[in-house]
Amino acid sequence: MVQFVGVSEIRRIVAQVGIDTVLTRMVDYLEADFRRWDRFERIPRLASHSPGGVIELMPTQDDALYSFKYVNGHPYNFERGLQTVVAIGLMAEVETGYPVFLSEMTILTALRTAAMSALAAKHLARPEAKTMAIIGLGAQSEFQAAAFRAVLAIETLRVYDVDPAATAKFVRNMAGRGVRVIACEEPGSAVMGADIVTTVTADKVQATILSDNMVGAGVHLNAVGGDCPGKTELQKDILARANVFVELTEQTRIEGEIQQMPADFPVTELWQVIRGEAPGRTARDEITLFDSVGFAVEDFAALRLLRDLATETGQYETLDLITNPADPRDLFGLIAPAAVEAAQAA
Amino acid sequence: MVQFVGVSEIRRIVAQVGIDTVLTRMVDYLEADFRRWDRFERIPRLASHSPGGVIELMPTQDDALYSFKYVNGHPYNFERGLQTVVAIGLMAEVETGYPVFLSEMTILTALRTAAMSALAAKHLARPEAKTMAIIGLGAQSEFQAAAFRAVLAIETLRVYDVDPAATAKFVRNMAGRGVRVIACEEPGSAVMGADIVTTVTADKVQATILSDNMVGAGVHLNAVGGDCPGKTELQKDILARANVFVELTEQTRIEGEIQQMPADFPVTELWQVIRGEAPGRTARDEITLFDSVGFAVEDFAALRLLRDLATETGQYETLDLITNPADPRDLFGLIAPAAVEAAQAA
Repeated sequence: MVQFVGVSEIRRIVAQVGIDTVLTRMVDYLEADFRRWDRFERIPRLASHSPGGVIELMPTQDDALYSFKYVNGHPYNFERGLQTVVAIGLMAEVETGYPVFLSEMTILTALRTAAMSALAAKHLARPEAKTMAIIGLGAQSEFQAAAFRAVLAIETLRVYDVDPAATAKFVRNMAGRGVRVIACEEPGSAVMGADIVTTVTADKVQATILSDNMVGAGVHLNAVGGDCPGKTELQKDILARANVFVELTEQTRIEGEIQQMPADFPVTELWQVIRGEAPGRTARDEITLFDSVGFAVEDFAALRLLRDLATETGQYETLDLITNPADPRDLFGLIAPAAVEAAQAA
Repeated sequence: MVQFVGVSEIRRIVAQVGIDTVLTRMVDYLEADFRRWDRFERIPRLASHSPGGVIELMPTQDDALYSFKYVNGHPYNFERGLQTVVAIGLMAEVETGYPVFLSEMTILTALRTAAMSALAAKHLARPEAKTMAIIGLGAQSEFQAAAFRAVLAIETLRVYDVDPAATAKFVRNMAGRGVRVIACEEPGSAVMGADIVTTVTADKVQATILSDNMVGAGVHLNAVGGDCPGKTELQKDILARANVFVELTEQTRIEGEIQQMPADFPVTELWQVIRGEAPGRTARDEITLFDSVGFAVEDFAALRLLRDLATETGQYETLDLITNPADPRDLFGLIAPAAVEAAQAA
């Protein structure tokens, strides 16, 4: 039987365990898996493009477990009242190839992306950072806010969105969560005095959410929204001034902010910083940039955590997905009418 | 909500609809999709190898639907009492990227592989064929037998396996199914007088199940077992004498029997024959060979049929896999403790 966590189960798990605990444990799981980066199979995602969007499969495996995520990106869904991104995930045993865990991954991906940002900032931002700006208040924004509060003890959020309804939703969702929210009228005022700037806009275009003159010395930039070819948020000049950190270099050169830069633009992979094999921030006045696009190892860590949380809380169902004939060569016996009748009666 | 067909549902569907109808309809669905071959995305499967086996993702899409299959291949599973191959499949809408159908695919793949063999033979075997030999009586063998009986009205099966227990299982499963089964002591006697020869052995090695002198004029060879690098069943000389048909040339040159032949060895893609754009069998005494390895378009057709059968019979469950927030930007609102409590109470 395959363990299954649907939308109602993950909602109950987060409510029961508490989002702060889920996010801090997610950071721990991500950090543990980034430390053993070389033990993972790292292959490019498999993308199927269509006029309306893209559907991707993102697999990886270590010695014991295999995982993949199914995820789409359909910008026009928003106009239909649908989500632009939904995802599902699966884990299997490497030794037998048998699936063991299937789950919704829309909420889980939002949690892991936010935890990943917090993990990067933990290693790259100035340790005394207390104020974060968030530009773009869509589906991912509150998760970012929650992760930075839980993991880095961020006290003040200066936020901006082109749509006042999105801002209102953000303010409502963050009420009573122990963080001060200052809604700003423009991006320029949001970033003023911020130690960390998170950009997480949704437009699938080459946009300039942040221009060079908006970014001061010592800031850590957390660029979450620019995550596919043709979609960027930062002015090129900012990249030239920043010390840039990525998940997987070859993938980020195609999908991240650095798609604007030459192929030899220097970057550091975050796992090297986490393992102490490369420096992170080297000076207080340095601009650091985490050019986040998402990678399969992060989904692996997220599925590993959700599977553990499901087992700990008992919040899961079981799915009848795998045939189990008494004689493995006798698959046909399973569909013999008499066998089906007997199974139904049982 | 995502429609879900698990093992118990597919067993009930086959029992209720009847395996002959399922197989003949599967041939129709496969034939329809092969006719519009150029409308499908054709990309190579994504394989993750490990010492014990392989896990593969096989995606494809047309204008309206996307599908992928998760499938493993673990030869040592048999010694553990497990199946060497299990599979699950998913369909999604191309326009929105939303998954709509999830199912077990172990039984479904067995049905589609057998239906695919029957479809190829319908176009390539001599029309008066009444006797088929089957070498290798593992999990796929009865499905092959059932498909050839239902679709080509095969009357006699001459069968062989190295393991008498496998032969006994085959004879037991085919009892009362309107076909005469002759269990043979060696491959050479099984193929004697056969119009069609199906090889479907499971060893992951370069084996010689059929040698050149065993294959007479006019025979149609249905080579199902040789389906990955290093795994073949036919002696090379047979290939040189045969008119060879494949699913997707570049994939079959790596995985099929023709991996033994030079890269320019001539083959015909089956969709061309089905569309009447290339000749199939050109002479009564010609040896035709369907070098079957399986391709994503076949899984697409199989999932399409199973989804229709599930809807027609009502044999499915629904899975709570996709978040559905009232405001698509308010994913975070779904995990607010008050919202979770309200959802539980509802």
